Amino acid sequence: MLTEGRRPGTGTGAADHVSLRRNNLSVVLRHVRAAGPRSRARIAAETGLNKATVSSLVAELVERGLLREGQAESERGTLGRPGQLVELDGTRVCGVGAEINVDYLAVAALDLSGDVVTERRVPLDVAHLDPAVTLDQLAELIRAAVAAVAERNGLTAGVTLAVPGLVQSTTGSLKLAPNLGWSEVPVVDEMRARLGAPAYPVRVDNEANLAALAAYSELKKDADTKADDIMLLTGAIGVGGGMVAGGHLLRGGHGFSGEVGHMPVAPSGGICGCGRTGCWETVVGLTALLNKATDPDDPVRDPSLDVEQRLAEITRRAEAGASRTLRALADVGTWLGIGGAILVNVLNPDVLVLGGYFAVLGPWLKEPLENAIRDRVIAPEGGGCRVVQSTLGFAAAVRGGAQISLDQVFHDPTLIGRDTSGVAQ
Amino acid sequence: MLTEGRRPGTGTGAADHVSLRRNNLSVVLRHVRAAGPRSRARIAAETGLNKATVSSLVAELVERGLLREGQAESERGTLGRPGQLVELDGTRVCGVGAEINVDYLAVAALDLSGDVVTERRVPLDVAHLDPAVTLDQLAELIRAAVAAVAERNGLTAGVTLAVPGLVQSTTGSLKLAPNLGWSEVPVVDEMRARLGAPAYPVRVDNEANLAALAAYSELKKDADTKADDIMLLTGAIGVGGGMVAGGHLLRGGHGFSGEVGHMPVAPSGGICGCGRTGCWETVVGLTALLNKATDPDDPVRDPSLDVEQRLAEITRRAEAGASRTLRALADVGTWLGIGGAILVNVLNPDVLVLGGYFAVLGPWLKEPLENAIRDRVIAPEGGGCRVVQSTLGFAAAVRGGAQISLDQVFHDPTLIGRDTSGVAQ
Repeated sequence: MLTEGRRPGTGTGAADHVSLRRNNLSVVLRHVRAAGPRSRARIAAETGLNKATVSSLVAELVERGLLREGQAESERGTLGRPGQLVELDGTRVCGVGAEINVDYLAVAALDLSGDVVTERRVPLDVAHLDPAVTLDQLAELIRAAVAAVAERNGLTAGVTLAVPGLVQSTTGSLKLAPNLGWSEVPVVDEMRARLGAPAYPVRVDNEANLAALAAYSELKKDADTKADDIMLLTGAIGVGGGMVAGGHLLRGGHGFSGEVGHMPVAPSGGICGCGRTGCWETVVGLTALLNKATDPDDPVRDPSLDVEQRLAEITRRAEAGASRTLRALADVGTWLGIGGAILVNVLNPDVLVLGGYFAVLGPWLKEPLENAIRDRVIAPEGGGCRVVQSTLGFAAAVRGGAQISLDQVFHDPTLIGRDTSGVAQ
Repeated sequence: MLTEGRRPGTGTGAADHVSLRRNNLSVVLRHVRAAGPRSRARIAAETGLNKATVSSLVAELVERGLLREGQAESERGTLGRPGQLVELDGTRVCGVGAEINVDYLAVAALDLSGDVVTERRVPLDVAHLDPAVTLDQLAELIRAAVAAVAERNGLTAGVTLAVPGLVQSTTGSLKLAPNLGWSEVPVVDEMRARLGAPAYPVRVDNEANLAALAAYSELKKDADTKADDIMLLTGAIGVGGGMVAGGHLLRGGHGFSGEVGHMPVAPSGGICGCGRTGCWETVVGLTALLNKATDPDDPVRDPSLDVEQRLAEITRRAEAGASRTLRALADVGTWLGIGGAILVNVLNPDVLVLGGYFAVLGPWLKEPLENAIRDRVIAPEGGGCRVVQSTLGFAAAVRGGAQISLDQVFHDPTLIGRDTSGVAQ
C-alpha cells in the first residue's frame, strides 16, 4: 500500500507538476500536428483536458513559436461564437541532421512542417582521414546549415549526427564503426566543442536508424500505404539496417540493433571490415559489387569521386547491357535476397526499403532479390513484403536526423525558449 | 484545412464521445494497476482528467467489477477529509489461454492480478491426429478452465488460442503450422462452434509471441532488471521466436514475425518440416537433439510420453556425465549461438530467454550458446545480451494467452458488462 503523496519513482510534488505540464504541452502540440488546425474548445473536447488548461497550454505554445493563431473557425451550427483556430507554426523551429559516412559528409535542415531549409553533401575519403579532420569539416557544414536557418529567422532546435556504426546515445559516443576505422570516439563532445558549446542539444544516432525513420515518414505521406512495419537497408561500403515496428524505431536494448551487415550468410565469402569471414556486407556491400563488376584500375572504384557519379556510370553500363555489370548486379541482388529472407522471416516487415546504393541500382537488384525472398520465406508470398526503392537517396540519414531533433520538441515543447529568440536555458 | 466537426477517420460526434469515454476508462484502470490504490482526487491530479469525470469513470469501473473500494486514505496533511482509496479488483475477471503444440495441449486461466486460477497440460501426439479431434480435446480443456473460473464466482473475459505457426489474427485462421501438418484451419471459428458460440471473444496468436509476453511479465516483476527488449526462443520440435521491443510485442506487418526456426543457418543440415534444407530448427529442434543423443529405439524419442518426462531422462543422463548426451547438448548449444548471434546483431535484446526444452536443458546449453554469441556479435560483449532460462517451462504460451485476453480488458473495459454477471452484449 502506497501512503506517500507522490507516484513511485518520480520526484517531489512540484516536479510532478512541471512534468505534467510538459506532458500536456506535448499532447496539445502533437494533437494539432496530427489532426490539423482547430479551436481551443475542440482541442479540449478531443484530448479530455479542461478548457482553461487548454487555453493556457496553447498560449504557452504560441509564446514558444510552435503554434500560431490561424483563421476564425467557419460557423457550422456550433453553440456560441465561432472560435479562433490554432495551427502548427511550421516555419520557425528547425532540426538539423549531419552525417559522416565512408565516402561523404552530408547535412540537412528541416522545419517543423518537414520542409527542407537547406541540404548538402560533399565527397570525402573519411576512412583515410584523421577523425579530427573529418569532424572539423562536418562542423563547417553544420555551422552553414544553422546559419541558413537563422537567415530565415528560424531557430535550430537541435543537431543529430548520423554515423555508420554502433553508438551509445546516452554518452554521445561512437563505440565502433569498422568501415570508418573509428572506435570509442566521443563524437557529441567533439562536435559540441567545435560548435562553441551551443545552447541546442547535439545527439548521435546510427545512420540506418535515421534513414529508416525518414523512409517511414515518406511512406506515411501516401495515405493508401499500410506500412507501420518497415525495414530499411542502407547500401554503402557497409550495409546497415534500420527498423520501424508499429510506427516506432527499433533500437534494441543497448541501441545496437540493425547490425544486419554482419549476419554470417556467406561462409565462403571474404574477410569483413569487422575481422570476421562471410558477413553479409562482404557479398552485398558496394565494394563487393565493384569487385565483381570492374577491374582494379576502373575509375568507378575511386573513393575520391562522388559515389553518385560512380553509380551513374554503373547505371550507364547496365542500361547498355554490359554483361559483366549485369551479372554482378544479379549476383548482388540474389545475395541481398538471401539475407533479406532472414530479416523477413524474423521481422515480417510490410515494406523492405532499399536505401543508399541499393536504391540507385534498384531496377537491376529488385527482381533477383524478390525471387530469393519468395523462395526462402516461410510465410506465403514472402509474408506480403513489398520491396521499394527509397526516394531519398543518400539524403535519408540527414533527413531522419533532422526529424529526430524536431521529434524531441514535439515530446518536450519546453526545449524551445518562451521568448522564441533562442532555445530554452 | 479541416472544416468538418469531427476528426478525420473517426465516426460521428456521438461515436467520438463513446470512444473518448472508453479511452478514459482504460486510462484510469491502467493507472490504478500501474500506480496502486489511490483516491479519486489523486487519480484526477495524476491523469489530468477532471475530478467529476474521474468519479464517474471509477463508478463505472466498479460496476464492471474491475475496480473496488479500498480502505480510507491515511491522513497526511491533505486538505479536506481523507479520500476513499480505489484499487484493482483482481479476483473477478479472468483470461484463459489454450495451446496446441506438436506433442501436447495446455490451458491456463489467470485473474486480473495475474494469479493462476487453473492450469493443465496433457501429452498428445497432435501431428498424427485429425485437427478436428485435437480441437475437440482442447475445447474440453477450455470448458473445464471456464468452469473453474465460474466456480470461484469469476468471469471469463476471453480465450486466446496459442499455435506453433503462422496466424492471421484478423480472420482467426491458422495459415500454416508445418510441424503440426496443419494449413488454412479456421481455428477461432472451429473453437467458437465447439464452445457453443460463447459471449466472450476467442482469439488466436502464435505460441512464441504469447510465451514472449509471459516471459516479459516475469522479468518485469524483478524491479532491478532493465529488460524492455527481450527475445524468447521456444524449443520444441519446431523453434519459434517471440520478441518484445520497448515493452511491446513485435508482430510484424502481417503478424508473421518470429519465424526464426527457418533461418537458413546450416546449409549442410537436414530437411526441415517446411520442405527447405538447412533451417535453424533442423539443428536445434528437439528432434535434432534426440537424433544426436540417442538411438532410434530409445524411449525418450516416443512422442506419446510426456515431453517433461523424456527431458527428465536426458537431464539424468547429462548429470551422470553420459558423453554422447553431453556432446549432443554442446553441439545444439553452439548451433543455438550461431543463429542466436544473427538475432542479437539484428535486434540487440537485453535478454535472450530460453523457453520450452531449451529452458529445461539450459544448464548444458548456456555456455556454448554464450560463447558462440560473444564470438559472432559485432557489438562489444555480445551487445550486453544476457541469456536466461524461462521459469515458466511449457506453461509460458498459455500464461501469455491468458494475459492477452486480460490486456484487451485493460484497453477496453467496456468488454466487461456493467452488471458484472457476464461479458458485455
